[in-house]
Amino acid sequence: MTHASKLFPAEQGRFLKTLRGEHADATPIWLMRQAGRYMPEYRALRERYTMLESIHSPELSAEITMQPIEAFDLDAAIIFSDILPPLSGMGLELDFIKGVGPRLANPVRSRADIDALRTPSMTEVMEGTLGAIRLVRKELDTRGIPLIGFSGAPFTLASYAMEGGGSKSYVHAKSLMYSDPEAWDVLMSKLVTVVSDYLSAQAAAGAQALQLFDSWAGALGRLDYERYVQPYTRQVLASALATGVPVIHFSTGTGAYLESIAAAGRTAVGVDFHVPLDEAWARIGTDRVIMGNLDPVRLHAPWEVLRRGADDVLARAGGRRGHIFNVGHGILPDTPVDNVRRLVDYVHEATSR
Amino acid sequence: MTHASKLFPAEQGRFLKTLRGEHADATPIWLMRQAGRYMPEYRALRERYTMLESIHSPELSAEITMQPIEAFDLDAAIIFSDILPPLSGMGLELDFIKGVGPRLANPVRSRADIDALRTPSMTEVMEGTLGAIRLVRKELDTRGIPLIGFSGAPFTLASYAMEGGGSKSYVHAKSLMYSDPEAWDVLMSKLVTVVSDYLSAQAAAGAQALQLFDSWAGALGRLDYERYVQPYTRQVLASALATGVPVIHFSTGTGAYLESIAAAGRTAVGVDFHVPLDEAWARIGTDRVIMGNLDPVRLHAPWEVLRRGADDVLARAGGRRGHIFNVGHGILPDTPVDNVRRLVDYVHEATSR
Repeated sequence: MTHASKLFPAEQGRFLKTLRGEHADATPIWLMRQAGRYMPEYRALRERYTMLESIHSPELSAEITMQPIEAFDLDAAIIFSDILPPLSGMGLELDFIKGVGPRLANPVRSRADIDALRTPSMTEVMEGTLGAIRLVRKELDTRGIPLIGFSGAPFTLASYAMEGGGSKSYVHAKSLMYSDPEAWDVLMSKLVTVVSDYLSAQAAAGAQALQLFDSWAGALGRLDYERYVQPYTRQVLASALATGVPVIHFSTGTGAYLESIAAAGRTAVGVDFHVPLDEAWARIGTDRVIMGNLDPVRLHAPWEVLRRGADDVLARAGGRRGHIFNVGHGILPDTPVDNVRRLVDYVHEATSR
Repeated sequence: MTHASKLFPAEQGRFLKTLRGEHADATPIWLMRQAGRYMPEYRALRERYTMLESIHSPELSAEITMQPIEAFDLDAAIIFSDILPPLSGMGLELDFIKGVGPRLANPVRSRADIDALRTPSMTEVMEGTLGAIRLVRKELDTRGIPLIGFSGAPFTLASYAMEGGGSKSYVHAKSLMYSDPEAWDVLMSKLVTVVSDYLSAQAAAGAQALQLFDSWAGALGRLDYERYVQPYTRQVLASALATGVPVIHFSTGTGAYLESIAAAGRTAVGVDFHVPLDEAWARIGTDRVIMGNLDPVRLHAPWEVLRRGADDVLARAGGRRGHIFNVGHGILPDTPVDNVRRLVDYVHEATSR
């Protein structure tokens, strides 16, 4: 193990220093879906518990959150959960179907469905995750590692709520958005309330950074993004920033209008693997902290190939203090564990300063 | 019907004039997947014949190709086929599974599989499609409407060949690409041979324009696109342009590096709905013909909403002579037929000059 207990608090660690724009001794690295199916510990636990049990039990969620922290020298933990459970509290029946993914049994399809959506306190709905945050913080504090909380963004949640699951065309969500802007506004405004509440509750429970996942924003072109999404994202990000903890705004497929993503709030920006990082900084400003952006498929390759991929990312980052290394999209289920370990150590070694 | 027999040959029609950079009396419009499931005539025919029968029979393919031409005042026909049948000739077992889509029973997974791929003459493998082109030309010539031939691009075909069907992560294709560039080169070079041959054969059979579909190119970031895809696409486009017919290079999800797409060849460029057209011209040059880019989900909306979407596209095109109106992605199955009719007529009326 390379991660001997750290002697400083998480606030002095690489990840939070970098998010604050301060000098850190190396580039921090964490990996989206770092707790997940590629780890045998995770698969063993998930054989005994369902996805919803794993999410809503503070003890299980905490245990899963810590699995990659025990295994690798990561610079941040992210609470184990999913973006969809807040929708359960709004009235949607969520389940995770093995081999298929999340499904909502009663998707939102009409104005009446939208009006019926509740906006309950996330302190109650997400009690398990908030409890997990409190548990994990105790463990992490002794190691000087910070904890990230997260939420899905209004557009991604609205799309899931309307499609009922994964989609290629987003025909239900976009049809409503185009055809009934007033109903869209009601739906998105309710999601702004829920997401803002949820992020604040996570910060209050102990999350030291917050990430907003707009995983499906790339379903839209720039003009539609600016018209139908950005105003709501802006509200959520302002509310999240008001908690005082740093915020990362991540989206995928939005490389064509990264400027509009960045304009939604003074956050760090998570960039998927479509845009080289030097281009991203040139487009959104060198004062921004950027997180990214190794193609996660590289983690399936032999080490030398993976190392060259990491070198490409690091070369584009050019040693900037405002870089958080991450994959440009979540780690895939069949990723070799040893590649994750080597990547984490390599990024630290290669950027030590 | 608004499309009374035209009194001029297709070469003098809006579509080919626009592709040649000449003045046309209005903006030409055709729609990707204009022959498809949203049309009752198509569904009726497909109840009697499988997808593979419909593709490989010259008569059926010709009949389907003509269905939208009979129904709407479109400025171009595109031969009814699919991008995958050429892979059958290379040794892959293709089937279309109802409700699922195309599947390859024996996907390419190893260097040995790649070495075993054949590169037979497309004149034989795609005999049905080439026969359909000859049949359709006879029908279209009396109406002054041109015919577009098409092929999948090497990267999209390589990805399908390796994944065996649709994919979210493209893990097999990208893993090979990253890990064994030599095997990747062999695979892509074979596809260059097949695709170039197929496009030339279509031009020889009577296609008056050729479209290359790199529908999955957006799976890659810019650097990977330039390294692993663009050199092969460049060969195909050079070969297609050498036939003397105009070529359209279409891709999706590549808005972050439209410049690299345009740099692959002196073709017209099909732009998906991520990038507003004025931005696209500013990025790739105002001398380029651009095809695009209405979000096809707009076709599900009430007419006034669809019209505003069309107006947005036309406003961004700013009356340029180098604009071909199209959807930014194929028409969806549940699209109302009447919306297609109104859109086609509206684009002509609104751009009449």
